[in-house]
Amino acid sequence: MWTIEQESFDPATAKAYEGLFTQGWAWVHLRGSLEQPIPGQPQDAPYQRTAANVTSEQFRERITKWGCYLPGIFGNHPTLNTEIINLPWPLELRIAVEGIELTPAGEHSLEHRDDSKPASPDAGAHTANASSPIPRRIARDSRTLDLRTGLLTRRVRWHVAGRTLDLVFERFVSSTRNGLIVQRITARADASCNAELIAGIDARVRTNGHDHFRSVRFDARTPWLCCHVHTDADDHVHMACALRGHFTTPQPQLETRRAAWQTTMSVEPEGATVEKITLVRPDATPPPSLEALPTFDDLLAEHAHAMRCQWDLCDIEIQGDAESQLALRTALYHLIRAHPRTSSVAIDAKGYAGEAYWGRFFWDTEVFLLPFYAHTMPEQARQLCLFRVETLDGARANARRYGYSGARYAWESDHRGFECCPNWQYADHEIHVTADVVFGFLSYAQATGDDAFLTHQARPAILESARYWLTRVDRRAEDDRVHLLGVMGPDEYTLISSNNAYTNRMVALALELAARLADNVHEREQWADTARRLWIPRLGSLILQCEEWPLLAEPDFDSTWTDRSRTYAAQVSQERLYRTKCLKQADVLMLMALLPHEFSDEQLAAAWRAYVPCTTHDSSLSPGVHAQVALRLGMYDQAWEFWKQSIGLDLDVTRAGAAEGVHIAAAAALWQTAVFGFAGVKTAMQTQTLTIQPRMPAHWHSMRFPLCWRGSRVQIHIERARVTLTHLHGPPLDVVVHARPKRLEPGQQQQWSLS
Amino acid sequence: MWTIEQESFDPATAKAYEGLFTQGWAWVHLRGSLEQPIPGQPQDAPYQRTAANVTSEQFRERITKWGCYLPGIFGNHPTLNTEIINLPWPLELRIAVEGIELTPAGEHSLEHRDDSKPASPDAGAHTANASSPIPRRIARDSRTLDLRTGLLTRRVRWHVAGRTLDLVFERFVSSTRNGLIVQRITARADASCNAELIAGIDARVRTNGHDHFRSVRFDARTPWLCCHVHTDADDHVHMACALRGHFTTPQPQLETRRAAWQTTMSVEPEGATVEKITLVRPDATPPPSLEALPTFDDLLAEHAHAMRCQWDLCDIEIQGDAESQLALRTALYHLIRAHPRTSSVAIDAKGYAGEAYWGRFFWDTEVFLLPFYAHTMPEQARQLCLFRVETLDGARANARRYGYSGARYAWESDHRGFECCPNWQYADHEIHVTADVVFGFLSYAQATGDDAFLTHQARPAILESARYWLTRVDRRAEDDRVHLLGVMGPDEYTLISSNNAYTNRMVALALELAARLADNVHEREQWADTARRLWIPRLGSLILQCEEWPLLAEPDFDSTWTDRSRTYAAQVSQERLYRTKCLKQADVLMLMALLPHEFSDEQLAAAWRAYVPCTTHDSSLSPGVHAQVALRLGMYDQAWEFWKQSIGLDLDVTRAGAAEGVHIAAAAALWQTAVFGFAGVKTAMQTQTLTIQPRMPAHWHSMRFPLCWRGSRVQIHIERARVTLTHLHGPPLDVVVHARPKRLEPGQQQQWSLS
Repeated sequence: MWTIEQESFDPATAKAYEGLFTQGWAWVHLRGSLEQPIPGQPQDAPYQRTAANVTSEQFRERITKWGCYLPGIFGNHPTLNTEIINLPWPLELRIAVEGIELTPAGEHSLEHRDDSKPASPDAGAHTANASSPIPRRIARDSRTLDLRTGLLTRRVRWHVAGRTLDLVFERFVSSTRNGLIVQRITARADASCNAELIAGIDARVRTNGHDHFRSVRFDARTPWLCCHVHTDADDHVHMACALRGHFTTPQPQLETRRAAWQTTMSVEPEGATVEKITLVRPDATPPPSLEALPTFDDLLAEHAHAMRCQWDLCDIEIQGDAESQLALRTALYHLIRAHPRTSSVAIDAKGYAGEAYWGRFFWDTEVFLLPFYAHTMPEQARQLCLFRVETLDGARANARRYGYSGARYAWESDHRGFECCPNWQYADHEIHVTADVVFGFLSYAQATGDDAFLTHQARPAILESARYWLTRVDRRAEDDRVHLLGVMGPDEYTLISSNNAYTNRMVALALELAARLADNVHEREQWADTARRLWIPRLGSLILQCEEWPLLAEPDFDSTWTDRSRTYAAQVSQERLYRTKCLKQADVLMLMALLPHEFSDEQLAAAWRAYVPCTTHDSSLSPGVHAQVALRLGMYDQAWEFWKQSIGLDLDVTRAGAAEGVHIAAAAALWQTAVFGFAGVKTAMQTQTLTIQPRMPAHWHSMRFPLCWRGSRVQIHIERARVTLTHLHGPPLDVVVHARPKRLEPGQQQQWSLS
Repeated sequence: MWTIEQESFDPATAKAYEGLFTQGWAWVHLRGSLEQPIPGQPQDAPYQRTAANVTSEQFRERITKWGCYLPGIFGNHPTLNTEIINLPWPLELRIAVEGIELTPAGEHSLEHRDDSKPASPDAGAHTANASSPIPRRIARDSRTLDLRTGLLTRRVRWHVAGRTLDLVFERFVSSTRNGLIVQRITARADASCNAELIAGIDARVRTNGHDHFRSVRFDARTPWLCCHVHTDADDHVHMACALRGHFTTPQPQLETRRAAWQTTMSVEPEGATVEKITLVRPDATPPPSLEALPTFDDLLAEHAHAMRCQWDLCDIEIQGDAESQLALRTALYHLIRAHPRTSSVAIDAKGYAGEAYWGRFFWDTEVFLLPFYAHTMPEQARQLCLFRVETLDGARANARRYGYSGARYAWESDHRGFECCPNWQYADHEIHVTADVVFGFLSYAQATGDDAFLTHQARPAILESARYWLTRVDRRAEDDRVHLLGVMGPDEYTLISSNNAYTNRMVALALELAARLADNVHEREQWADTARRLWIPRLGSLILQCEEWPLLAEPDFDSTWTDRSRTYAAQVSQERLYRTKCLKQADVLMLMALLPHEFSDEQLAAAWRAYVPCTTHDSSLSPGVHAQVALRLGMYDQAWEFWKQSIGLDLDVTRAGAAEGVHIAAAAALWQTAVFGFAGVKTAMQTQTLTIQPRMPAHWHSMRFPLCWRGSRVQIHIERARVTLTHLHGPPLDVVVHARPKRLEPGQQQQWSLS
């Protein structure tokens, strides 16, 4: 259960596989597009993407979408604010035999052929007629991503010029050498022949239709072909590629926006290989000597070892459910990959695998991603928190721009913390993100025990955000309470509301923390007082999402949501969403999932009854939360249904899947559902003592995963009959399983039998 | 009180005068820009206007903005939907002596000089130093618009090349010959000299920064210089200009996007004149013979006579208040001018004098403009109603696009009725326009007695809009009432609300009318039932603007609205507007002004107390409505304050004034305040009997104006001591003045003395 297979190239699913097969490490991320351009699929078509609700946005129809992203390299979009730049595509590795070039096998791509681009003359010979006596020119074109190592392997059987070639393309992004991309082509033929290779860097790309390159310059000095990009944000990015192996002296092809080495290799029955080495670098100094670099196999071994260490930190092994196992490992692969390993940027909403959310940072960071990293790689969690601390000036600028004091974190943050969201309804009203950031600091400290982070690094951000809230709250005549009005909660289908329960509670929590850290007595009292006066609307035992909830119209899903395979938002007008009791995602239930100890089972059940029938789960973040809440309510069947919904997100290539990028926050929600849900680990916000109450699905035999808890690391093994904990690292740890406490000394193993 | 003066050219006010001095008739409208281009003010600078709230939009800083608009000639904007096209500028009439060209006198314009454009070499010699011994090159540059005729006259005294020239530029757009623009230059010199003239058509223009011309073609066949424009909406517009008078044989200057005649006239002490005749035509047939056209003076006389007839239909003569008199006449001038005299388009929000609202049609048509035309030029009112009837298919398409039955009129309609508003909050939620359209039909019929219009022409639109409402209303569990949720009322500072009082009542009215006209029993009952179940939220005697009103925050104008000379919206964030009890314009009071008989004085007073302190009047439509309501409440001082606010709108050139177009709906509101307010004429929605209860301001001696009432036309003369009505036309008319009824036979005069 370590591999994802693409059995054959199909234009209908190609883009989804590209997102799913994204490779990367730290500051280079590459979508899983083919090494060869697809005829009729230019990557530099200019278009104007407009500010739309991404949930219901129709993305451009195309078969392939290259993507090369460097976290931190952002540019200026003329109407949509700062966005991550799609950089030149460095993976080009084309092959031709007797002038016939390899292109993807999919017949459908031919309909889109652009005759202005070089196309394989044999491509036209394909027919869908499987009984044809002529062998299909491309008899096989399959790909495999090895999640353990991130090695992407493509195998092609190609009948060309009277010969049969077996080609293997391999590639990975090194996790030990930052910015190193390694590719290899291995070719075998039934009879020897020459193959022409073209391997270069293609800067004929756009980002969301926009050209962010102030200049692109190429130079070729054997063995390196260099590409120098100057972006519209005045950043410089340098790429260099070279070939290794046996081939004729490479000749440079230099075009305005593209350059490549051209050479010829001899293909024999016993096989031949050529490697392409690409370096992505922040400076223009000459690349190192090619000879000094280890071989492909050695580079891969070194990288695979490092990747194994990553997996040791976070893998969840499930016995008895191959599908869940693969989904979890896919999620973990992208969580390992997408973290930039720096605090100067965070993890964008599409995990550096697409441009749908412009490479920006959302509340996903704190609420969805942070728990995973805090309990598996605490240093990476700390970097995510530090990102918010380091972008405090941006948050201050946002507050000023709206006329407020203090710091207001952006709904869609760029690398400097500036608000970039082009849709005012979210940017203006979805203010809970500022409280979520502080919640993130707190939950990081609770999970890791790193309390000094709160009192030192995070302190200015916590105090500044409290100052913002003081200017953002409202009063009403003859009312002692404090109100947060004009608010959009996590449920984005309620446009603007008063006293959103989620927001009010999270803000009160942030103010309570700020009051604890304040050294100005006046501020301390103001913040504590405001936290007390913020209230949550209720109707009996039902926590109301907001005061307006009872005013909304009944959802009439039966007549308005006729095609349940597509989102609700894609089928009704936005104004219907906004006036109806339909939820995009959990809102009150989200609050209850984050702070379960603050709500009674009765309140939880009332909220479930009221909101679940109204929830569309149009947001990928919704099912995971629902699964966790259902487990707490003992509704195992429903929890399982929600789990099944979550695991399909990126893997289901027949729907959009990861076409526009991976759902990285949903990937982290999957981990949360497994650990906080099925394994029944209480969150660090609930308790400082590691507390486990397993609720595994009936057909799972066992779960095994490592967990960091306040400075200690343990291995947790849950079987049907027992729970076994092994202490791996750190100080002794008290653990409660099924209400039975035990102490785990370093190196010790403890077992709890479940009767 | 028939003229507006621009004493001298000042870059700071130039654009406001351009809007104010807009001339036009039927299908040609021209902004009052100078005949000479201003150096450094290219009119074809490309830029991207974004969808913003026009109330708080910062328009491009520039000194001059040409505008030539043909109602019905719309183009496709890449992001902002259909907009009216700014066509080539046909008024160019440049003059130079010994190579020195006349440019505007304003010194400030020089700072903006664009050296790539031909600039007057003497312009640089200007200094602000008034005591300079060198005479100012341009000693005088004043303009006068004669409201009676629409003749715009510019007088320039110009010291040039050792001579002093007195120049008079005159121009008008003929109201008797559609598409004819007539210009004349009269030049006198203290010593004879030659003056070079350049007179052409300049297509180097854009609309909101966008180029809508698919092609521009020029040809010159003496005496006509022709310009053929092909727009991006596949329309063709043809212009032709020619010169008359004494001058050397004109030579054509042909450039890609501009062409002109170049000639020389001899300027003597006794004066010389040259005329420029321009024809704007829908077809490309050769222009008529120039000789067949009457002289300038004859054309002007013919036009002035026709204009006098227009004024006879609508002039309001006020004795005792010159300022109000001028403001009213300015308003009436634009109301006479801006009506396209066809039903294929209506009157756009800027009266064809600017591009701020993209040349689109709003609820202004029915609620503000229609009463003026119905009571002065009923045929023009009928055309405005027919425009809605003829664009029913567009309204049907809008309904379908949102997933509804029937017809949904556009918040911002183009000439086909399609929704063009780029801001979804208005387009989606400000649905009252569909009810306003039906209200317009009804109030037109009430005012004119043209009941057949309802039962015939307007009937399909009325029934179709009722069908829309049936699919747009909502139900709530355990509630017999019917609700309109997710609504923005006339007050656009409350984003989205439930059961907006204005909307609910207007929709109920529209449904009541539809039920009366229905011939399907089932529909009739449904519509009548829905009208009954739609309700208005109340709190004691206060009509609530909407159910959410009590939830909003108290406005804190003292601390948030520090500069009262600018709009509130320009000083606070939009999200603050949306969560606060601050009104852009009258909402509940608007309803009470339209249907005064449905509300008690107590309700009116309660609404006044609740809403007036919260109202910002950021909308130009607000003060007029408030003045009328204040008069009904007997609050004459406050009414007078609101009147003073309304009359400054376009005339105050030191603020934006008419820079981006005239406030044509506010102009009509001025007429309403004068007639329904000060003269105290009850609206035709209130009573079928002409009923007058004068409430003139204390310092007004008298008001005299004509009025059409259900097929009759009377002259109303209100003095402090008496009211005199003279029957001018039509059947006998019953009139009630101060509760005393009298009958007016044709030709008869009746008097009521006021003790």
